[in-house]
Amino acid sequence: MADTGGGDNLTILKLGGSVITDKDTPETVDDDALAAAVAAIAESPAIDDESDEANLIIVHGGGSFGHVHASDHGVSTTEGTHDPAAVTAIHGAMKRLNSVVVDRLQAAGVAAVPVHPLSAVARDGEAAVSLPTAAVGSLRAEGFVPVLHGDVIAHAGQGVTVISGDELVTGLADRLGAARVGLCSTVPGVLDGEGDVIESITDFESVAAALGDSESTDVSGGMAGKVEELLALARPARIFGPDAVGAFLAGDAPGTLIDGGSRD
Amino acid sequence: MADTGGGDNLTILKLGGSVITDKDTPETVDDDALAAAVAAIAESPAIDDESDEANLIIVHGGGSFGHVHASDHGVSTTEGTHDPAAVTAIHGAMKRLNSVVVDRLQAAGVAAVPVHPLSAVARDGEAAVSLPTAAVGSLRAEGFVPVLHGDVIAHAGQGVTVISGDELVTGLADRLGAARVGLCSTVPGVLDGEGDVIESITDFESVAAALGDSESTDVSGGMAGKVEELLALARPARIFGPDAVGAFLAGDAPGTLIDGGSRD
Repeated sequence: MADTGGGDNLTILKLGGSVITDKDTPETVDDDALAAAVAAIAESPAIDDESDEANLIIVHGGGSFGHVHASDHGVSTTEGTHDPAAVTAIHGAMKRLNSVVVDRLQAAGVAAVPVHPLSAVARDGEAAVSLPTAAVGSLRAEGFVPVLHGDVIAHAGQGVTVISGDELVTGLADRLGAARVGLCSTVPGVLDGEGDVIESITDFESVAAALGDSESTDVSGGMAGKVEELLALARPARIFGPDAVGAFLAGDAPGTLIDGGSRD
Repeated sequence: MADTGGGDNLTILKLGGSVITDKDTPETVDDDALAAAVAAIAESPAIDDESDEANLIIVHGGGSFGHVHASDHGVSTTEGTHDPAAVTAIHGAMKRLNSVVVDRLQAAGVAAVPVHPLSAVARDGEAAVSLPTAAVGSLRAEGFVPVLHGDVIAHAGQGVTVISGDELVTGLADRLGAARVGLCSTVPGVLDGEGDVIESITDFESVAAALGDSESTDVSGGMAGKVEELLALARPARIFGPDAVGAFLAGDAPGTLIDGGSRD
């Protein structure tokens, strides 16, 4: 039951910050969870194939690295700062986490290389994202697997604000024409009021009540936001749990399908 | 005797890798030299002015950080690698140097923030550079001083190759319309056969003999290359020594003027 989309063979995989870090301890990697995700990626057809071009881009969240510093400095996706020390505190923490992820992927045989959004991405005064893909696209064409992360980026009139990993995923998927988009969360999918995985979501209204009610959806850092972000994407995406990374990369259809249906 | 160019009030300052590092000891900062450059920058009118926009972009070279690793892995501006471990070795060393430079500038009151070229810049198959300026331009508009560095970048058909700080300087100057461009080298300017500073250079042929002959010009890592790069720039630039950073930023005209005269 493989699902495919438009574009080429590109898969964009997001590893949630709460999946790969211990969210309760500042700047602590969840070694077992990261090792499991790395193993699933290293064994996947996206890495194994014989094309010269890499068919995978990885984005990870902040977890106990970026979020702690962002919170300390009062910075969010809408609240900015002009303090350069806040920029380097948040960005530096995310680069430390990114370095761990990239190193572990390389050690497992994945040609991972770091890409830091602050160096390339910006928001204008209407919060629209400018996301040049020269580096990501060219690295991928040369066989490297770009590994991006939630970060702070310049934001007109605000200094810098946070860009989430989810927003990078949809921005890259739109611009690069990803065939498959998957978000690995701490939960096995978007859960309904009874805690069961919703099979597919095509509009927000039908699930708003469940997303608002369920405590269990909040541990991943805002499931409602993820669903809204993915519904706006002009291609289908999936939200699934840590155990399903391998299945997703193999072409299976775990977790919840999010498909807003807009194709422009 | 101030020299001005077109564009707005933007100054681009390059700090040579051999100026701010001890080139003979791997990954060693020249603390005194960096402190002097940082002090000159912090006191300069480019930082002191009252505009909300930062009027300065800083680029630094690799010195004993990037060059050692690039050499170990056989990577240069023309010789590439597809080895992800080589990418992170070279890029990681440059990020360590960049972090020191940014931290010292911040400690001196400069709103410095890091910008890593690997995340944004790429070369095509004809080695033409794609250098998106969304992040650099937006950071600057918000009052931050972007601090870039020589790096490895994706290069079509080659994996990654080195982009020098000098090439970033001219690329940014062209795209952002810098009013003033200055390269701080270890020597007080481009030296003639007698070791005297040449006042101005408008074509390469007139100085080729001196640049080829003089041992003293080689310590900065290829003065001939710098001169050629700056002659191709559609605006005047200066090469000067470590003692002249403050004078240059104050609007004076130290060292050697390089002006190829092309204005397109």
